[in-house]
Amino acid sequence: MVRLIMHGCNGKMGQVITRMVKEDPEVEIVAGVDKYTGISNDYPVYDEIGKCSVEADALIDFSNAAAVDELLAYCREKKLPVVLCTTGLSEEQLKKVEEAAKETAVLRSANMSLGVNLLMKILKDAARVLAPEGFDIEIVEKHHNRKVDAPSGTAIALADSVNDALDGVYSYTYDRSRERKARDSREIGISAVRGGTIVGEHEVIFAGEDEVIEFKHTAYSKALFARGAVAAAKYLAGKPAGRYDMSDVIQF
Amino acid sequence: MVRLIMHGCNGKMGQVITRMVKEDPEVEIVAGVDKYTGISNDYPVYDEIGKCSVEADALIDFSNAAAVDELLAYCREKKLPVVLCTTGLSEEQLKKVEEAAKETAVLRSANMSLGVNLLMKILKDAARVLAPEGFDIEIVEKHHNRKVDAPSGTAIALADSVNDALDGVYSYTYDRSRERKARDSREIGISAVRGGTIVGEHEVIFAGEDEVIEFKHTAYSKALFARGAVAAAKYLAGKPAGRYDMSDVIQF
Amino acid sequence: MVRLIMHGCNGKMGQVITRMVKEDPEVEIVAGVDKYTGISNDYPVYDEIGKCSVEADALIDFSNAAAVDELLAYCREKKLPVVLCTTGLSEEQLKKVEEAAKETAVLRSANMSLGVNLLMKILKDAARVLAPEGFDIEIVEKHHNRKVDAPSGTAIALADSVNDALDGVYSYTYDRSRERKARDSREIGISAVRGGTIVGEHEVIFAGEDEVIEFKHTAYSKALFARGAVAAAKYLAGKPAGRYDMSDVIQF
Amino acid sequence: MVRLIMHGCNGKMGQVITRMVKEDPEVEIVAGVDKYTGISNDYPVYDEIGKCSVEADALIDFSNAAAVDELLAYCREKKLPVVLCTTGLSEEQLKKVEEAAKETAVLRSANMSLGVNLLMKILKDAARVLAPEGFDIEIVEKHHNRKVDAPSGTAIALADSVNDALDGVYSYTYDRSRERKARDSREIGISAVRGGTIVGEHEVIFAGEDEVIEFKHTAYSKALFARGAVAAAKYLAGKPAGRYDMSDVIQF
Repeated sequence: MVRLIMHGCNGKMGQVITRMVKEDPEVEIVAGVDKYTGISNDYPVYDEIGKCSVEADALIDFSNAAAVDELLAYCREKKLPVVLCTTGLSEEQLKKVEEAAKETAVLRSANMSLGVNLLMKILKDAARVLAPEGFDIEIVEKHHNRKVDAPSGTAIALADSVNDALDGVYSYTYDRSRERKARDSREIGISAVRGGTIVGEHEVIFAGEDEVIEFKHTAYSKALFARGAVAAAKYLAGKPAGRYDMSDVIQF
Repeated sequence: MVRLIMHGCNGKMGQVITRMVKEDPEVEIVAGVDKYTGISNDYPVYDEIGKCSVEADALIDFSNAAAVDELLAYCREKKLPVVLCTTGLSEEQLKKVEEAAKETAVLRSANMSLGVNLLMKILKDAARVLAPEGFDIEIVEKHHNRKVDAPSGTAIALADSVNDALDGVYSYTYDRSRERKARDSREIGISAVRGGTIVGEHEVIFAGEDEVIEFKHTAYSKALFARGAVAAAKYLAGKPAGRYDMSDVIQF
Repeated sequence: MVRLIMHGCNGKMGQVITRMVKEDPEVEIVAGVDKYTGISNDYPVYDEIGKCSVEADALIDFSNAAAVDELLAYCREKKLPVVLCTTGLSEEQLKKVEEAAKETAVLRSANMSLGVNLLMKILKDAARVLAPEGFDIEIVEKHHNRKVDAPSGTAIALADSVNDALDGVYSYTYDRSRERKARDSREIGISAVRGGTIVGEHEVIFAGEDEVIEFKHTAYSKALFARGAVAAAKYLAGKPAGRYDMSDVIQF
Repeated sequence: MVRLIMHGCNGKMGQVITRMVKEDPEVEIVAGVDKYTGISNDYPVYDEIGKCSVEADALIDFSNAAAVDELLAYCREKKLPVVLCTTGLSEEQLKKVEEAAKETAVLRSANMSLGVNLLMKILKDAARVLAPEGFDIEIVEKHHNRKVDAPSGTAIALADSVNDALDGVYSYTYDRSRERKARDSREIGISAVRGGTIVGEHEVIFAGEDEVIEFKHTAYSKALFARGAVAAAKYLAGKPAGRYDMSDVIQF
């Protein structure tokens, strides 16, 4: 039985994970941390991580950037493996992640789904075949209307994955309305669509002479990311210090 | 039999129309105009429109912005109905179009296809129902890698069509990467994808709570626009002076 | 305040509606009916509808065909407006629906979403313009892997909507693998894709010469249908006997 | 310079290849064969292959099944490498292909495009990761309204490619309308859409819990297949007897 601390337990994702873990015999939540304590859970909830002294095998974090510094300090000290799902970290915080990974296991991934991580791998093969044949590469991502960053971290990660396979010579283009000029062959255009409650859609397009190949991932529910986080926590429990990502969890 | 002058007869579209007209018993090309005279056609070709004194019922233009001034002067003087398909006209040229339309019939449309013109009409209905229910509106267009303008004139026309139906209160957003902020409900995001030889794809997305409705038009060949231009020329022959567009040609 | 009886309250949709109604000040659930009584709700639950004598303004049904006979008898007798969302009714049961509608208000719709009902309306316009121009019509629907009927009731309803606009001369084709022959222009092909947990996707395709127009609806969560059912119940409360559908609820 | 015989030179594909070869300095057509001799080409045309005694390095065939027996006999005898693009061959003819391949190089592929052949390779990787995780596999293909066979040979080849990677335990389902039952996890559903002039679209869908991954290939013009055939002919010239396919031509 893997014992979890749920950091950000009363947020949307924290509650999805709480429900999911109830039906999973291999894992249990032994404590939660959340500033907002108005929800009653089956486990004790602390308003600050420093107050929590419950023994655990791993921690899942779906909180916000402001809470991450204290969290990293805690996990370092306790040597507690941590699945870090909060996005929008600052450069400085990313350095603290690196520091923490010297003392404990830290898993951080642009996207927690099996499908997106598989795509990242497959796209490298596709890019190596299609780019030399003159195919242009474009990415379109779609998310809900409250998302504040654009393009999505996952879109950037997909572009990076393609670019890595092509010796890193591509630049990224986010806006074509400012200049009248034909597309450069060494650019990856990335478009961000925002609307409604779209959970997350990523489409990578290879457009050649008279043919187009598209690779598309659609997430239908945030439960997808919750499931990935729980799988990651199970994997991380007992692992030595270091940086991990979802491609370690998913065995291709 | 409608007698046509093909302005820009030795360009790509001019040649498509030349082949198409050969198989159409209702129409014939009686003269062509093109600076480049290296192709032999079944009709006389002049390197300047001023040199052409052949009698005709309509003129189709697929040339370039530089040739349009002389063309408009010619059609005005001859009272020759003109289907103007050249894009990228300057503000000044657009004024000359208005002037010409006082003397002869002038048809100009963002897009020559039946499908796109039908969409423009249908989108108004959809917008009036969905916008008040909180649906967000986005447009994604895809074109070949040599297109220099973005977004496409058709994408703008589709957005204008939606905006007209919503009292013109929407603004258009071409780039979301510069600012961290949630989407405004009164914006229409327009994304331009460029790659390969894609003829033209336009997708209008209405994204609401837990549901998305998409309207998509795909052009598979430029023959589509040639066919629209010929239909427009047949329609325009004999019509009085004035501004026309494809919605006049297509009877809904 | 509209007082609801939730028939099938402990099923998936019943529970979604239960949660939704809690946050809606205009409506409350005053009683539930379900054979399975293992879930505790904030309202009394009866294992048979006959045992329920609570006063109500409308009833929402998401149960199963076997429970519908008794339900209809109950609503007739009590003159209780009923939103009937159970699918797969027999011919005999459909007659009982008609009978019940003589005594009370009955709303039944192939699909409870705003988007699909809007599409049905718009498709009529599109079909009337495009079919005479030689466009072929096809429908592709996608649903989760536990759905037992194919094609979906919504796909059939979309086809019927198109066919109505075209004087009903089209036949429906579900399988093209048995015969080597070209497509007939007066058929609507309907394809059913099944996989994973797809909530529901419907795509209507008009394919012409060198252009394709697609109308697509995607449902991301069953909450969509729950929301539609609650809106329908509010609308139906106090209405006279008769047959109703979602197009009455949604004012185009 | 590779010298080609174009078998079926006056058909649609024969003429596309004729135009394409004119602009390719590495290859020339030295003779054509076609029953219909009403088109004038830059090369001699024979109405029967037996009458053609022109020296060549390879032959491209885009004719019809009725002409294939005589063609195979000719290529065997002349030891002439042949790119066989005619589809719909009988079992007996397929045996003759095998026989011919003992004497000369024979290339036959379900689809002549780079993109589709890349997809076939990539899909094996995807299937091996996703199928064990419970993803369902479906294929949707779209073609023009005159295509008589369904599903397309390419769709079957894509399904075979996936099935090969999964130990061949999957069966194919073409119609779900005849039986009320949930999807079997070991089936690949294949849907065929027909309409307008669609050149060819193939979509392979992996649908899992809350996520869907799609791989899609769109052909925009038959020039794509002509280009593949010419590339294949260049590759095949001078090769020893045996069976070849496009994956030999395209170096992954």
